[in-house]
Amino acid sequence: MNQEEQVQVLGLWGSPFSKRVEMVLKLKGIPYEYIEEDVYVQKSPMLLKLNPIHKKVPVLVHQGKSIAESLVIVEYIEDTWKTSYPLLPHDPYERSMARFWAKYVDDKVMLTLWKACWGPESEREKMVEEAYDGLKYLEEDLGDKQFFGGETIGFVDIAADFIAYWFGIAQEASGVMIMTAERFPKLQRWSQNFVRNNIIKEVLPPKEKLMALFKAQFGNNASNEA
Amino acid sequence: MNQEEQVQVLGLWGSPFSKRVEMVLKLKGIPYEYIEEDVYVQKSPMLLKLNPIHKKVPVLVHQGKSIAESLVIVEYIEDTWKTSYPLLPHDPYERSMARFWAKYVDDKVMLTLWKACWGPESEREKMVEEAYDGLKYLEEDLGDKQFFGGETIGFVDIAADFIAYWFGIAQEASGVMIMTAERFPKLQRWSQNFVRNNIIKEVLPPKEKLMALFKAQFGNNASNEA
Repeated sequence: MNQEEQVQVLGLWGSPFSKRVEMVLKLKGIPYEYIEEDVYVQKSPMLLKLNPIHKKVPVLVHQGKSIAESLVIVEYIEDTWKTSYPLLPHDPYERSMARFWAKYVDDKVMLTLWKACWGPESEREKMVEEAYDGLKYLEEDLGDKQFFGGETIGFVDIAADFIAYWFGIAQEASGVMIMTAERFPKLQRWSQNFVRNNIIKEVLPPKEKLMALFKAQFGNNASNEA
Repeated sequence: MNQEEQVQVLGLWGSPFSKRVEMVLKLKGIPYEYIEEDVYVQKSPMLLKLNPIHKKVPVLVHQGKSIAESLVIVEYIEDTWKTSYPLLPHDPYERSMARFWAKYVDDKVMLTLWKACWGPESEREKMVEEAYDGLKYLEEDLGDKQFFGGETIGFVDIAADFIAYWFGIAQEASGVMIMTAERFPKLQRWSQNFVRNNIIKEVLPPKEKLMALFKAQFGNNASNEA
């Protein structure tokens, strides 16, 4: 491959944001070099140079230029390699809905779900209610579709990777159960469809490793009450 | 005009988010019906129906379908009316940079600037420092260009409308001066270019009305220390 064309990803093994980028590259069949960037240990000079503003993973490097922010990167990959495995619908309204829901997941759902599992005990009840609210609209939007993207994994499915995989493990590790099959049957079915996909499976971090990370970082919930 | 093709905007006269949508429609020469939605008084049944999740303005209605979230709306308008006054560059990397900076303004700058003017006195110093940091990267990115979009107003300029206009009035009303010509000469020049544009000018709310609103809502800074 022409070195100019080389694609690199600076990522973190357990980050759902990093994994969005890897999933999309693999779905589109684009070869890339993966560089593990353990931001918890020390931020590398390479990361600080490539993403001086946010200093966060993921970063995509292509043709010698770097891009940060996972959904911005995903749109770049879509714009650059349009024809192989389109992620966004062609119709402008459908595209706008995909962007709306991806933003909704980022702004309104992810942090809420995380806090419902690991937030302070005193706020738990309120956060669990907010988590139910956040997921309710996704359950409705999903409806009877196999994926948010329809019959194949699309932009919103990628944005919601945390809900499909990480959140289940966070629930198990924390003992807080929110996205149950009784309450959210459609999201449950979708989550299973998503994690069983052969390409997605290749990218997901091992469950045991994530479980150990969560338990080490957060212990049992009560210990967060310092 | 075919009623199916009719464009409506639910907006709020003083909102920089609503105005983003109106600016883009006017730049592209798309006629629209404007519906004032005073969310501070009471949210109308129409707003609750069209944006049930966020219950916020702006909402765009086109061909009987509604879209929320100002930057999602702007991308929809761009995708639907591509050729008249393109807002996003054609090159995928340049597009990704425009999206990066627009997101940066939304996530990192707007609230910081607002808090630097109106936040509690005890946190003012810290917030002013953060505001300097936030603007610093924009000043660098702007460089000697007339607009973030180059020679014409583009996606980032629209996203940054608050910085170009509202923030100056907020500074004057609060007495907190941050974006001075000495410290941010490029942003100052850009701000003037932006607000003097004939189309933008048509859309901006009157300065006196905004000034009165800010003073009524926030009074002098000290009064925020409750």
